[in-house]
Amino acid sequence: MKIAILPGDGIGPEITAEAVKVLNALDLKFEMETAPVGGAAYEASGHPLPPATLKLAKDADAVLFGAVGDWKYDTLDRPLRPEQAILGLRKELGLFANFRPAICYEQLTHASSLKPELVAGLDILIIRELTGDIYFGQPRGRRTAVDGHFPGSEEAFDTMRYSRPEIERIAHVAFQAAQKRSKKVTSVDKANVLETFQFWKDVVTEVGQQYPDVQLDHMYVDNAAMQLVKEPKKFDVVVTGNMFGDILSDEASMLTGSIGMLPSASLNDQKQGLYEPSHGSAPDIAGQGVANPLATILSAAMMLRFSLNQPEAADRIETAVKAVLAQGLRTPDIYSAGTTKVGTREMGEAVLKALK
Amino acid sequence: MKIAILPGDGIGPEITAEAVKVLNALDLKFEMETAPVGGAAYEASGHPLPPATLKLAKDADAVLFGAVGDWKYDTLDRPLRPEQAILGLRKELGLFANFRPAICYEQLTHASSLKPELVAGLDILIIRELTGDIYFGQPRGRRTAVDGHFPGSEEAFDTMRYSRPEIERIAHVAFQAAQKRSKKVTSVDKANVLETFQFWKDVVTEVGQQYPDVQLDHMYVDNAAMQLVKEPKKFDVVVTGNMFGDILSDEASMLTGSIGMLPSASLNDQKQGLYEPSHGSAPDIAGQGVANPLATILSAAMMLRFSLNQPEAADRIETAVKAVLAQGLRTPDIYSAGTTKVGTREMGEAVLKALK
Ligand SMILES: CC(C)[C@H](C(=O)O)[C@@H](O)C(=O)O
Ligand SMILES: CC(C)[C@H](C(=O)O)[C@@H](O)C(=O)O
Repeated sequence: MKIAILPGDGIGPEITAEAVKVLNALDLKFEMETAPVGGAAYEASGHPLPPATLKLAKDADAVLFGAVGDWKYDTLDRPLRPEQAILGLRKELGLFANFRPAICYEQLTHASSLKPELVAGLDILIIRELTGDIYFGQPRGRRTAVDGHFPGSEEAFDTMRYSRPEIERIAHVAFQAAQKRSKKVTSVDKANVLETFQFWKDVVTEVGQQYPDVQLDHMYVDNAAMQLVKEPKKFDVVVTGNMFGDILSDEASMLTGSIGMLPSASLNDQKQGLYEPSHGSAPDIAGQGVANPLATILSAAMMLRFSLNQPEAADRIETAVKAVLAQGLRTPDIYSAGTTKVGTREMGEAVLKALK
Repeated sequence: MKIAILPGDGIGPEITAEAVKVLNALDLKFEMETAPVGGAAYEASGHPLPPATLKLAKDADAVLFGAVGDWKYDTLDRPLRPEQAILGLRKELGLFANFRPAICYEQLTHASSLKPELVAGLDILIIRELTGDIYFGQPRGRRTAVDGHFPGSEEAFDTMRYSRPEIERIAHVAFQAAQKRSKKVTSVDKANVLETFQFWKDVVTEVGQQYPDVQLDHMYVDNAAMQLVKEPKKFDVVVTGNMFGDILSDEASMLTGSIGMLPSASLNDQKQGLYEPSHGSAPDIAGQGVANPLATILSAAMMLRFSLNQPEAADRIETAVKAVLAQGLRTPDIYSAGTTKVGTREMGEAVLKALK
């Protein structure tokens, strides 16, 4: 089992280090190799996703990814910015299925912006298509407008698109995930305005006929953004496109109040996957030893379950994380009066101890 | 002063009727004419935006719009569905500037999903560009994919686009609105992925140099969806494109917990405008006399201020609405223990009384 470790920027290295310790404590045989990515890679070799890093990721069974990005790279040309590494990895590895759980941990319910009764027990799984839509559609660029409101003026444009097989495969992923949960899928679209998402709705509906045991609802993206605030527990599995998924998965994770706890997985059709925390690189607290490593540790658990076929090891990690929460240990992002504030490394050590 | 009244579907007729009564009580001289729109127009004449309705709207100084839509029209071909009337009016009247306030009324703070301290006193103004972006961009449709992941397969596509003058004019609207408020604009984009929104960011930044008294920040749309949940009061004026504005304005209005109170305005460059409540047609409660008419009444106030140059009349209406809230009157959507539950008509009557 080969794992590529890509720590990245900001708090990435600190949180990844703790997850690696946890993996090493499992008595499983992994080959782990580390490579720079994002701003760190740009500094080392002039590109956010150097060929050697990409090759390592492609040759691995799974990638454990920290986070990338820092304000200091904002002035670079777009192709050199840290986030291009994520987009490049998704594209090159064909990671079309992004799993973004939004779970509200019992002990952390109070940390949510929402009233506790609205989020207690929240457990949503957002499945975002990750290699299509307007993220990769061609053509795109700048040109002189030939029609529209101001013909002759400078304009910029992008292409949104989805093909039938792209929609079918992510729909299958969603229905199969729902079969293992409460058998309910909400497909989010904007079929009232976009050709792409009328097609999305049509194809998801067709695929749904192969899953008569799963209830399928459709919701417009604007309404979904509202209902997530109003009554988040109405949702179970949500499936949507790349752009809407970007927005809704972040909104949903923030509802929990503890984004520092939320892992994510991005898979291709060979179950090869990239695993990363849902939060960002937090350059403001980098290097201070205060970042929460739990989302990364839980991402490692998802990796064991989805890509490395080690469900028991995944369970062990998740149980250990619950145990440290129950012990009252909290990094600053999830701290509240009456609990024990710890740093990144102490939190990692506590998980290690709880594993045993 | 000519006002076109387009009541529409669902609760549209009931709530519009109350707003018309309020307008009539102002001792101003209006010419008001009513026409069907949406599903009601489709039933009457086979089209959601019949030529006579469009002409009435074009010839008027302002349009007071109720709401459109009903599940029963979901199976119609897209060009015949009720919401096409809104899109058609926006396009034909050139209503590029959409104002969507998200205000949390003091007496209704508890109705929010969010903890009261996060929303008490909330007052965000979202300015959404309304005639560009992927809503109207050409080409769009279905075709056989020639590239992408599955060449040869069926695909659907849309075109996102913005021209320089389109971005400039909405940016000016936003900066000028900010000058009358707390002099802070957040421009929301997705410049890290989309050519269109890198251009958006560049042009908004350029325009911002003409407003040195206004502070301009940029935020990615996914982060904005999160920050609205986490700390909504950090925002003041938010300016964004049509698609992101659709999602974020609905999210923001739901944060207040009282979307039944929120008006909206959509203006063109001659200050001609369409005014409508931020909520929908609510077919489930249509005809029961329980809908909240206040968002529509407040939309009429916005109309007086923005299109009809009657700011004192607008103030009078807004003061009257605050008075009825202070009296404890509540339609079911904003009712809570200790207040007095009233229906649509009683609420309208109460505003009339408070006007005098
Ligand atoms: C960094 C950015 C390109 C990326 C995206 O938009 O997909 C991020 O927001 C995410 O969700 O992983
Ligand atoms: C009905 C629909 C076309 C419309 C939109 O997407 O603009 C609506 O959601 C709105 O925000 O007014």
